This record gives sequence, structure tokens and C-alpha cells, in this order.
Amino acid sequence: MLQGHQSWIFRNKPVILSSAAVGGPFEAQGNLADDFDLLYGDIWLEQDSFEKAEKKMLEDACDTAIKKADIQKGDINFFLAGDLMNQIISSSFSARTVGVPYLGIFGACSTSMEGLALAAQLVDSGAAKYALAGTCSHNCTAEKQFRYPTEYGSQKPPTAQWTVTGAGAAVVASSGNGPRVVSATVGRVIDMGISDPFNMGAAMAPAAVDTIQAHFRDLQITADHYDIIATGDLGQVGHAIAKDLFKKHGIDVPENKLTDCGLLIYSKDQEVMSGASGCACCATVTYGHLLRRLRAGEWKRMLIVATGALLSPLSYQQNESIPCVAHAVAIEQ
Amino acid sequence: MLQGHQSWIFRNKPVILSSAAVGGPFEAQGNLADDFDLLYGDIWLEQDSFEKAEKKMLEDACDTAIKKADIQKGDINFFLAGDLMNQIISSSFSARTVGVPYLGIFGACSTSMEGLALAAQLVDSGAAKYALAGTCSHNCTAEKQFRYPTEYGSQKPPTAQWTVTGAGAAVVASSGNGPRVVSATVGRVIDMGISDPFNMGAAMAPAAVDTIQAHFRDLQITADHYDIIATGDLGQVGHAIAKDLFKKHGIDVPENKLTDCGLLIYSKDQEVMSGASGCACCATVTYGHLLRRLRAGEWKRMLIVATGALLSPLSYQQNESIPCVAHAVAIEQ
Repeated sequence: MLQGHQSWIFRNKPVILSSAAVGGPFEAQGNLADDFDLLYGDIWLEQDSFEKAEKKMLEDACDTAIKKADIQKGDINFFLAGDLMNQIISSSFSARTVGVPYLGIFGACSTSMEGLALAAQLVDSGAAKYALAGTCSHNCTAEKQFRYPTEYGSQKPPTAQWTVTGAGAAVVASSGNGPRVVSATVGRVIDMGISDPFNMGAAMAPAAVDTIQAHFRDLQITADHYDIIATGDLGQVGHAIAKDLFKKHGIDVPENKLTDCGLLIYSKDQEVMSGASGCACCATVTYGHLLRRLRAGEWKRMLIVATGALLSPLSYQQNESIPCVAHAVAIEQ
Repeated sequence: MLQGHQSWIFRNKPVILSSAAVGGPFEAQGNLADDFDLLYGDIWLEQDSFEKAEKKMLEDACDTAIKKADIQKGDINFFLAGDLMNQIISSSFSARTVGVPYLGIFGACSTSMEGLALAAQLVDSGAAKYALAGTCSHNCTAEKQFRYPTEYGSQKPPTAQWTVTGAGAAVVASSGNGPRVVSATVGRVIDMGISDPFNMGAAMAPAAVDTIQAHFRDLQITADHYDIIATGDLGQVGHAIAKDLFKKHGIDVPENKLTDCGLLIYSKDQEVMSGASGCACCATVTYGHLLRRLRAGEWKRMLIVATGALLSPLSYQQNESIPCVAHAVAIEQ
């Protein structure tokens, strides 16, 4: 139910019955390779287009999550998914395969937590017994659509980020064993006038800070409440800005508690400029790595703050700045 | 709360405190001109791009709905919106203007009822006091993005539909006066293998029938329950197919009860081929015309079944067929 102006407290603490993360060959060379359920050797996934490969990843993540939850597809009431592709085709075509009632969502790279928050809200309020949340991204589909086909080999500035090839999914249920979703905060759209699509981290950082601030205010808590706070995909540039903004706004978030999925997934040897991004960044790191550590008892409470840049190539071409949003979900073991 | 497998019964019957419909100059010549709150004489809305005009329409529809509800923007907990533009920029940029917490959604032309269903669910379960649902489309942005710029003057087959230039919004609240949202059914993705993007009605009709069938099954009711059942934008071709499918499946839906927003909005003199379509079709007809007649006491119960074709130009180019979805919302006076 509503807590404060823009947050939900989930009184029945919906359970993340299972989660799954799948990734591409580049992700297999990263820091978190062991936390993926499935790593593909071929960036095409033996499909005849990158878009079909992206769709297949989301289907595989959903399949894996459903199997791990030990339920049937037919048990799932609603599938909530979205992605970066025009008209979220990866999600809609996956929904055709999964075959359960479908709610398409879009929050760019914040989609993972928008989906998990809504899935938890539906389960918590008795509007669903089982809800499946998922999202995906593919480096080559995103580059092709938002910038240039990767085959061109175009150069990028150091503020740019590397779109993760992967997919993540989670089954949320009213009962069972697993980490529990206890609250969520839906973000406002924040636009500080940044218009450089090669500097998404800087554009998204204020949205992450705004949502975290709203979360603390609505729940009347501080950063002390959490063992770890992970933003979605701010990268080095955005992460540094977020830390500065917390200081400026007088919000105490200890450095050792604040991390960013975009800084965790790849190794230092991988040339990803400012870090990772894409819908699959926060999704795979959360559903693979972070939940594994929570389940292992390393942390008791974590806050995931997925960040999204809501631009399109066309809005950029029309000289618009980049509106951003962040959605936060609190998970407890 | 969950009713059957894919429906929600709203026990607290959230109120549609206000609704607004805005439309372009072509819509001003249509059958339902009197039911719009605002009609623009200029298809550009004095903006320097059609995309900015589309965004402005959604902003105006939201503003109008908020004013009619006699509340402040700051009272609204969540804004749920989506549209046909890549990365739903019309909605996200409007959300920047509206300035309230934002949940981006996508269901192509089914977005209107996806938004209203979720808004009602949030209000019904106590997760929101006020929720704003909105969507928009613009004939020239949709033609440019999905087919050819209108300036080319390309010809279309008689099965094609005319994208509505307009926007619709509704304020849903836990109490107050107005029509009440009593139930909703979330649709599955249905794909019967149709791959002609100039025949959306035929592609979407099976999704509409599947959702209506699920609605009747979940709620254990028949068409008798409703005074009117309005599909979103099947047009003449899709409407005829839907009627045939009801007969084939043995579902009795009397002809005088079944209508389609895509057949209502334009006059016979307007050359719109099979009928109207676009996110704004179901949104403006419902939030303007149909709700006016319900408020006037002409009907007591209506079921709105917004239909969406979840393709993209790229999925079509890659020889994919057209997955479709329909979401149903029941409204009572």
C-alpha cells in the first residue's frame, strides 16, 4: 500500500521464488560470470538477427526462472516486461512465447525494477498469485538502434557506456522461500538539461538521487537501513556525480554501501569506457549476483535503484535534453 | 484482487474522477467532435515537429483532466502512460512536464486500457490515492515512423486504418463522484500468423475475442452483463472478423451491443479506409464519447477492450508476423 507520496510498503512481503540471469560471451569474461545461469558462446545465439538473439535471451531467462521456481508457465498470472527496442519487440515477442497475460512496460534501463515493483505490488495486493518480471538488452541491437551498427567500429568518448548483452527474470509469489520484496519507490522524471547521449551516467545520476531521497523520506529511514544500495547503470561518471549530489543534499550514504551495477559486471581489463548499461545491466547483476549474495546471508537488506534514460534517437535529433527516471525496490533476506 | 486467472475485481470500485479527450483538425470533422474537450485547428499545434505536437496533446489532455478533477498535480501519486513512438517519448516527455512519479507502459493501441486497468488496480489496493492514466497518437508521427512520411502521399489498401491525432487521460481516485472501474482483464499475446501491417484489424481481432472470452470466463458472466462492449480499433475488417469469431467460439454477443471505437470516431465522408486506429482512438472515444453517454445514464455498464498490434517496422522487415494483445476494463455508472 501507499507509503508517503510515491512509495509502496508490501505488507505481505512477496517472495522472489526464483531469479535467472543469462549473458553473452563478453559478459562471460566479466567479474560476475559465475553468477549467470547461462552464458552463450555466440553473440548471435544461432539466430539470424541480433534482435532475434535478444528475444531468445529473454525467453531463456524466463524459462530458467520458471523452472527454478518449480512452477508451470500456466501458473503465472502476469508477465511484466520491457526493453530498449522500438515498440519493446523483444518483450512482446517473448510474451507470445511465454503465452501468459502480458503487461508491457517501458522505463529504458530502469525497466527491471519497474517490472519487479509492479509484480510485487500485484502479488502483495492479491491481484496475482505468481507474476513474472523480465527484461533484456543486446549490445549489437542497442548500438544499431541508438547509435551505429557495431560493424562500423565507430569510436566513443570515455563517458560512454557498454550495453550489456543479457536478460534477467524473476518469479514473484505470495508465499514460498526466498528473498522478499518489502517496499518500492516509483521515480519522477528528472531532466537536468544534459543532452549528450554519450554521457548517460551524468544524465541519470540526479534521477537516482531523487528517487533514493524520496524513498528515505517516504519510509522515514536513512541509508543505515540498508546493507547495500545499488544503482542501475550510472557507470564511473554517474556514480561520482551521485556521490557528490548526496553530499550536496546532505544525505549520508556511506561510500562502502553505495555500488553500481554498471561498475560491477565487467572486469578492469574489459574496455567498457565509463561502465555498463542497458536494461540487462541492472537485471542480470541483481537477479544473478546481488541476490546470490543476499541469499548467502552476506547482506540482510538491499535497495536496488534501476536508472533509465528516456530519450530516443529522434528526441536527441530534435535537440531535446535527456529525461531520466529511477525506480527503487527494497529486498530482504 | 485476482479473479480467475487473468482478471481483477476492484472491490472498492475506483472512481474515474475526470476524463479528457483532445483531438486534431481531422477529428474535429468527425462524428464525435462534440465529445472532445479541446480540438486543435492546426495539426502542428504550433510546434516545430509533429512529435512535439503529439507530446503537447498528451500534456493538454492531462492538464484538462487534472483541472476537471479539481485536484492539483501534486496530489497525483502516479502517472501511467505510453504511446506508439519509439521509446514512448511522447509519454516520457509529458511525464517530465507533469512532474509526478511515472510508470511507462506499452501496449501499442491497447495502452489506454492497460493504463486504466493498472491505475484502477493501484487505487483499489490502496497503492495510490490518485492515479493519472494517459495516452496519445498523431497521424503524422505514426505514419512517418511506421510507414512513410505523410508528405509522400503514398497510397494504402482498403484494409488499412487511419491513426487518430489526439490524446486521452483520466484521473482515477479512491473516492468521489463519477463512473466506477469495477473489473479488468489483462490479455495474452495472440498471433494468428498475419504479417500484413496494412491489415491490423484482422491481426488484432483474435486478441480482442480471446480477452473478452477470458473476461466472461474469469467473472462468470456473459455479454448480458453489459449494455455496450466497445473494442479499441478493429475497424470494419477486424470488427467483422471479431463477430465471426464470437459465432465460431459459441459466444453470444448481440450485434447491437458490440461496437468499435475505430468505427465511431470518423464520419462516412472521411476517407479512413477500414476505420480509425492509434493509441488515441480508444482513448479519446472512451474518455470523451463513451463516458459521456455512460454519465448521461444511457448505459449502466460498459466493457472497453483496447486492442494493440505489438509489431515494429523492424520486426516486420525481419518477416515476423504481428503479435497482438487486448486489455479489457469494465466501467459502471
